Parts: sequence; structure tokens; C-alpha cells
Amino acid sequence: MSALLAQVMRTGLLGQQGLTVWLTGLSGAGKSTIGACLEQELIARHHLAYLLDADVQRAGLNRDLGFSRSDRAENVRRLGELCGVLAQSGTIVIAAAIAPYEEDRRLVRERHTELGCTFVEIHVDTSLDECMRRDPKGLYRRAIDGSLAQFTGISAPYEAPRAPELRVATAGCAPQASAALVLAELERRELIRGATPRVIHSLPLDALVRRKAEALRR
Amino acid sequence: MSALLAQVMRTGLLGQQGLTVWLTGLSGAGKSTIGACLEQELIARHHLAYLLDADVQRAGLNRDLGFSRSDRAENVRRLGELCGVLAQSGTIVIAAAIAPYEEDRRLVRERHTELGCTFVEIHVDTSLDECMRRDPKGLYRRAIDGSLAQFTGISAPYEAPRAPELRVATAGCAPQASAALVLAELERRELIRGATPRVIHSLPLDALVRRKAEALRR
Repeated sequence: MSALLAQVMRTGLLGQQGLTVWLTGLSGAGKSTIGACLEQELIARHHLAYLLDADVQRAGLNRDLGFSRSDRAENVRRLGELCGVLAQSGTIVIAAAIAPYEEDRRLVRERHTELGCTFVEIHVDTSLDECMRRDPKGLYRRAIDGSLAQFTGISAPYEAPRAPELRVATAGCAPQASAALVLAELERRELIRGATPRVIHSLPLDALVRRKAEALRR
Repeated sequence: MSALLAQVMRTGLLGQQGLTVWLTGLSGAGKSTIGACLEQELIARHHLAYLLDADVQRAGLNRDLGFSRSDRAENVRRLGELCGVLAQSGTIVIAAAIAPYEEDRRLVRERHTELGCTFVEIHVDTSLDECMRRDPKGLYRRAIDGSLAQFTGISAPYEAPRAPELRVATAGCAPQASAALVLAELERRELIRGATPRVIHSLPLDALVRRKAEALRR
């Protein structure tokens, strides 16, 4: 009860409800880059947003996990729990995580429903050919020459979502443009404010006051 | 780099830096109750705060863990990682967790230093006798009659912190009074604003403007 009250109070304080925007896609698809654009644009619009990068958590919360089927399930489960807590805390959390199995993503979605949090699944849809061409960390090269095992798209499956809230094709698109598509979808679903913020939190109060005082004088 | 920029932007947006306030103490010491008071008072002061209850996470992030020495270490490690992420997201996270081993708490503190986050350890210092007398969940009774194993204070150790940032004796104290002591300590360390908020985020803008406009007219 008290937890729920605190959640309502946070919503009032922030002028937003926390939620999870999960970016799934192949390694190199652009999830983290698009996620960072999203995070910055949301904050610029005075939304509290946080990019949760699965790679970073592989060195933190999930540092004891590998890439077996069961470890991948546990990896995604823990990320999902982390997202749920962040969403409850009022933050718009952007998870950038391959999460290659439909089943694991479904469980995260169900868990969000249990917690009363919104879950939005975005497929960052970059073809395997394009990801292999980019290969920003040289991982595909290593997966192909066999020095990296259980690599999604090469030696482990990627199950593309069949019914994500949005599919973003990245071919020939700057990350900012892809992020803009996600933002538009969140707006359309009335999960975020439009480009003109409804409540302005962080402008200097004096500037606000001067502007409004002038309006009152007219 | 971009993560750091986002963190700075969030600090500007919220007018606060995220941090972890860890309440350690015996079962029944009052950690969750004091934590809930802290959370509500911080939000009332327009701080973004979130109570992370270890018991709740035992049914979530840590649902695969038991009470062996190694599971307790992993339990506290994961809670610590969760706190670190919440603090990075800009939130003041209040962890209510027994965390009976000095070593486990030390590791969480070190991890916060690595992540560049502030960690404040509060010992909710209620005597074992008093906790047994309260026994709000009937757990001490079950631990004593042997139907509950590995119970902190009865059949598992509690290592009280030797140098916490604050020790709160709860005997004869309402939870609100204990929470007030923690708030005073956070203020003294300049980690939160005083009782009169420096920046008012959530008051209706019109009321603010009218008040300031009047001040400008004088």
C-alpha cells in the first residue's frame, strides 16, 4: 500500500510514469546507439530516462553468467527485474539487450504486467548481412572463425519478435532518425509528452517567472 | 562518455544526485518501516526516492536464492548492483536489507565507489531482545522452535557495522523519529536539500508565478 502511494507521489513529482522500452535485435544492430539517442532526447524533453545496456550489466549484475541457453534466460530475467524496479521508481528505462529468445522476452513482458508497469518492445531490425558488414567490435569475425562460441546470428539463434510494439528498419538511417521513430511511437501511445514539454521542470525559475509575469501584465 | 553526459543531464533535471542509503539491521529492527517513512518524506520534499525492500526482491530478482552463506552474499551483491543502477539513474534509493555480513556490505560500498555513486550505511540498531519481542512476522518463534533454519540472530550471525555513517537506536522511538534522524544526517552531509526545498518542481506553476510576480511588483 505504502509502495503504491510512493509510486503515485513519484508520478506527480516527475510528471511521468515509469515504463520499459526494450530494444531487441542482433549484435551490431544499433541498439545501444539508438538507445543513447533516445535517452538524451527524452532527458532534453525533461523526461527522466535511463539507458540500461545489457553489455554493461554483463560486467555488473550479470557478471556470473555466460551464453548457454539457461544463462541467457537468467540474463534476460534479471535485466527484466531491473527494468521493473526502474520503471516503478518512475524512470523511463531503455533496455538495449539482444534477448534472442521469444520466450524470455515474453516472460519479461508478463512480469511487467504483474508489477503494473508498461512494457514496449522495439525490434531494431538490422539484417544479419548488415550487422556482419558493420561488425563494430569484431565479434562476427571471431564467431565465424570459431574463436567465439554461441554467438547470436552465427552459432546461436535469434528469434525476431513476431508482434513487437514497433519495428525499426535501420538500413540507411542515422541512429537519431531511428530514435525519432521510437519517440513518435511513444508519443502516439501517450506514454511521453510531445516535443513541447507540458511541464517545464529545469528551466531557471526566474526566467519562467519573468515570462509568465509579462503574460499576466498584458 | 554518453552515459556520463546523461547522468549529468539527469542531475540537472532532478536537482539531485542519486545515492544509496542502506539500512542494515536484524529482522524486525524496523528497516522497512523506517525506509518507507524516509521515502515518503523525501518525496514530500520533492526528492525522487525509492524504497528497495530486500524481502520484496526475494520474490523478484533474487527469487532463485536461499539463505546459505554464498546465497546471502549473492543476494546482497545483486541488491548492491540494483542500488548502483538506481543511483546512476538519479534516484535516492533506500535499501532495506539485513545484509548480515560485514564483508558483503564492504563489497557493495566498494562497488559504489567504482560506479562513482555515494553509499551511506545506516545501522538500524534494535536489540535482538526487542526484535524477538516484536516478532512481527512470527519468524523468531519459528527460528527458535527449529522450523526455520539459518535465521539471522538465532541460527546465523549478524555482524553489526563497526563504522556506519549513522547508527539509529530505535528503542522507544517512532519510525518517523528514526527516519528524521537519517534525514538530518543526509542533510548534514549535503546529500539532500533541507526541509524547505531549494527548487520547487511540483507546485502548480500558476501559484508559483503569482507569488513571484507579487514579489517582483514590490
